[in-house]
Amino acid sequence: MWQYVKQLQYPISIKNKDLEMAKYIITQFGGPNGELAATLRYISQRYTMPDDEGKALLTDIGTEELAHLEMISTMVYQLALGATIEEIKCAGLESYYTEHGLSLYPIDSNGVPFTAAYFAVTGDPVADLAENMAAEQKARAVYEHLMNLTNNPELLAPLSFLRQREIVHFERFKELYEKYVCMFYKPDIKK
Amino acid sequence: MWQYVKQLQYPISIKNKDLEMAKYIITQFGGPNGELAATLRYISQRYTMPDDEGKALLTDIGTEELAHLEMISTMVYQLALGATIEEIKCAGLESYYTEHGLSLYPIDSNGVPFTAAYFAVTGDPVADLAENMAAEQKARAVYEHLMNLTNNPELLAPLSFLRQREIVHFERFKELYEKYVCMFYKPDIKK
Amino acid sequence: MWQYVKQLQYPISIKNKDLEMAKYIITQFGGPNGELAATLRYISQRYTMPDDEGKALLTDIGTEELAHLEMISTMVYQLALGATIEEIKCAGLESYYTEHGLSLYPIDSNGVPFTAAYFAVTGDPVADLAENMAAEQKARAVYEHLMNLTNNPELLAPLSFLRQREIVHFERFKELYEKYVCMFYKPDIKK
Amino acid sequence: MWQYVKQLQYPISIKNKDLEMAKYIITQFGGPNGELAATLRYISQRYTMPDDEGKALLTDIGTEELAHLEMISTMVYQLALGATIEEIKCAGLESYYTEHGLSLYPIDSNGVPFTAAYFAVTGDPVADLAENMAAEQKARAVYEHLMNLTNNPELLAPLSFLRQREIVHFERFKELYEKYVCMFYKPDIKK
Amino acid sequence: MWQYVKQLQYPISIKNKDLEMAKYIITQFGGPNGELAATLRYISQRYTMPDDEGKALLTDIGTEELAHLEMISTMVYQLALGATIEEIKCAGLESYYTEHGLSLYPIDSNGVPFTAAYFAVTGDPVADLAENMAAEQKARAVYEHLMNLTNNPELLAPLSFLRQREIVHFERFKELYEKYVCMFYKPDIKK
Amino acid sequence: MWQYVKQLQYPISIKNKDLEMAKYIITQFGGPNGELAATLRYISQRYTMPDDEGKALLTDIGTEELAHLEMISTMVYQLALGATIEEIKCAGLESYYTEHGLSLYPIDSNGVPFTAAYFAVTGDPVADLAENMAAEQKARAVYEHLMNLTNNPELLAPLSFLRQREIVHFERFKELYEKYVCMFYKPDIKK
Repeated sequence: MWQYVKQLQYPISIKNKDLEMAKYIITQFGGPNGELAATLRYISQRYTMPDDEGKALLTDIGTEELAHLEMISTMVYQLALGATIEEIKCAGLESYYTEHGLSLYPIDSNGVPFTAAYFAVTGDPVADLAENMAAEQKARAVYEHLMNLTNNPELLAPLSFLRQREIVHFERFKELYEKYVCMFYKPDIKK
Repeated sequence: MWQYVKQLQYPISIKNKDLEMAKYIITQFGGPNGELAATLRYISQRYTMPDDEGKALLTDIGTEELAHLEMISTMVYQLALGATIEEIKCAGLESYYTEHGLSLYPIDSNGVPFTAAYFAVTGDPVADLAENMAAEQKARAVYEHLMNLTNNPELLAPLSFLRQREIVHFERFKELYEKYVCMFYKPDIKK
Repeated sequence: MWQYVKQLQYPISIKNKDLEMAKYIITQFGGPNGELAATLRYISQRYTMPDDEGKALLTDIGTEELAHLEMISTMVYQLALGATIEEIKCAGLESYYTEHGLSLYPIDSNGVPFTAAYFAVTGDPVADLAENMAAEQKARAVYEHLMNLTNNPELLAPLSFLRQREIVHFERFKELYEKYVCMFYKPDIKK
Repeated sequence: MWQYVKQLQYPISIKNKDLEMAKYIITQFGGPNGELAATLRYISQRYTMPDDEGKALLTDIGTEELAHLEMISTMVYQLALGATIEEIKCAGLESYYTEHGLSLYPIDSNGVPFTAAYFAVTGDPVADLAENMAAEQKARAVYEHLMNLTNNPELLAPLSFLRQREIVHFERFKELYEKYVCMFYKPDIKK
Repeated sequence: MWQYVKQLQYPISIKNKDLEMAKYIITQFGGPNGELAATLRYISQRYTMPDDEGKALLTDIGTEELAHLEMISTMVYQLALGATIEEIKCAGLESYYTEHGLSLYPIDSNGVPFTAAYFAVTGDPVADLAENMAAEQKARAVYEHLMNLTNNPELLAPLSFLRQREIVHFERFKELYEKYVCMFYKPDIKK
Repeated sequence: MWQYVKQLQYPISIKNKDLEMAKYIITQFGGPNGELAATLRYISQRYTMPDDEGKALLTDIGTEELAHLEMISTMVYQLALGATIEEIKCAGLESYYTEHGLSLYPIDSNGVPFTAAYFAVTGDPVADLAENMAAEQKARAVYEHLMNLTNNPELLAPLSFLRQREIVHFERFKELYEKYVCMFYKPDIKK
């Protein structure tokens, strides 16, 4: 089980509304390469990891992605906090407002609701680790796209932190992947 | 953020495989009335709850639903652990096995992947609490259906625990709902 | 069966195009909290309502939601009627126009097609009535959001009417819910 | 608007449970070629039909498809009415029962929820009528498949009636299609 | 199997960026009436066509639609090639850029990912051909909508070519449809 | 563009019906780790590969996956060819038959229609190659699952061939990935 600690993994303190950036950043909540997909992917896969090291790593990173999901949610929430109808209209956020007001809901930047089809769990440790390495690289790419869309240091700092964590996770998954390739990957065996 | 504690909220210890029940119970992981929908619903809604009591309650119950999600995952994992191909065929689980082996993946009992379309966040505290009360009642109903499908006490005990928790959550949401109705609900105001 | 009566439940007569409002109001046709979800929810649930009062209420309200669906369709149709390509471009409606011209299609305000995943039918009368009460509150919230987005009295009048009807439906569902709670809800029974 | 008449378009009176046929027939409620897709397709398209004849035909047939949706719902309901847990298990209906008990919910025969992606509205009268002619032929094919799966005359009679209605609708759409081809179809004009 | 020939079916040479048109044209890649739906529909249906003529026609047109898919992809790619962040912002393409940079991904003009729910394969030759005739008409309508949105001759020429091909395909499907109606369509037989 | 060659990449010649295996193998047509996802992933990504080697490799493998899609389709078609209603019932294929007869349609083994949400295109060459390496490993795992479900040499031979091709593709993607990591991957740069 998980216990809630009333603290963000990395501080978020956004003083100025930016509804447009809210609209794009939300994709790291509910989009294909976002933190919700990441946490679900890892806490689902961990059961069939073949050893304790694998189970522990998947649990650790899955838990950290939950913290990232909270960071992203906080960013979106702060970016929209107190927006007026005029500001909502000005930023083209009426579609979101109609359904959700200024609350949080896991969608991608086009408004498509999150689906588990975004990630895979095969029960094969090599395939699952390859899936995870790819997931971290894709999330990194999306964070770079988001950073290209803003000059606001209050956004750039946490986005850069999240991007760096994806790279660290990638490296940790890669180590485990290489161990499992040695142990389990038999590409040449005639099935 | 959340911290992982290596302990289940309620002990799961299933000694005998039952792949058919695994197939139905998994819906409380990834189905429309399951624990993943619950936890996402609450940890998303909490940002726009109008007071600290609301934010705290949503965080608490959202966190507990994460623990339930882990219980369900553990049940499904234990129910299928070590199944042979013959057992998989006998239970009609080949479709699941083809994609996922014996690992966990958030689908409903028909194999449809989880989608955020299953739950709503409107940003309106009265509407969101009504959504939550309904969610708890629907989850209760599904647990009752699941309990009707088995006589195995190793399954009935955790399913009954989970059912009871839905009822407790329902009551807590109802209290908050009634408070918010007094504070915010103006059905008669001419808009 | 249903018979068509060539009359709207409430008159819609919009003299001036407003393509942007068309884009948001369409969510009450095909969005998660819209009239299509409502009517399908009720005309599906009615079969397993436990008594004639329940079957009749669900049929009545389900039928009225069909009339609301027609009102919403008429509003969207009138709001876009005769729009030129320049007007479509000006309002940012090109995406919709590309697929659908100026015709009606059940999507939410982001363009996501309607899915039955938006609503639930559990066969449990208490859970189903709770679902319905929540649905009415969520629809009310969306109508309030829509009313906040416009000052046009030709839109505000029918939107206000529809909002009021959701409140009336909520009250009627609540009465039946309370009856069924007395009759069927046994939270304390050890299952 | 529509008024409910407490009468089926064609009598349904099924004396013996057949949960397996319920599972397949439900696809004509919520599946890709079913009655819900049909009614929504027609009552959506009717707004942009170019003349009164078109609007009236789409309204008529859309309304009749609602009656068919009710027939299908009634068939599924009667086929499952009073089923015991043992009968549910014997027929492999546990997946459905887990989520929905013995109530109605619009899915296809595999359990996939209805989506509006199954049908199209383009606003082009020739394309929309071609869509409708195809829809009627596809529904006819599904009814023939269903009739091949049963020998029960209590099912065959209404299925045959519904199949015949699809053929009649096809013919009526074809007449209008041919009229609109003459009036509107300019394949050779250099755009 | 298919062999790749490094040549477009029709030349695409777009000199000036137009990110807005890229956003709409992409629907003919991944939208409901687009070329991906077309090619999959035909190369799936061909297996159960009742004679060699049918199998050959479906293979031919399915293969040509693949070439159209490549044309559309090339158009979208060229329309966005080298776009700066400022240009992306100006055209409102940030949502797409966030997920996909300037690469290709099969969505509709609203950003909804492609789904096979857009097309049908029934195994009934008359129904499948009717489906195909409708598909060609719907694609034609979408190409006309797209042509209405631009005056750029570098876009109009290939769009007009594609529109013409849909009309040719429609005619070829119609011929086969009429043959199959004679051979297989027995609407009056009492099933 | 592509040209059709009337020849399978690897011969398929299945003499005995096996409807159950048809049901599972179809997931490599329309499921999350199947050949349709593969071909679309690669022919979409190729546009933004940063050099000719990348564009060529993606085109080559994307084209080969089309050939695999045809092999899978042929296997499913042959496995079901000529099945009687009794055989369909015996194998539990009625759900599929109801919608599709014995024709081909891109779904996973649970009957969920194909969606582009199964794959990603980010426009970042390192992320896209990592995605592809993962895709090949996941497809390999599914082929191994399928091979575990059958002893039929007429199925095992093509499944083994397809599995081997995934491994070869993985190696080729890995080489390109490593080249692009050297050229483009700057994990340490402060964004």
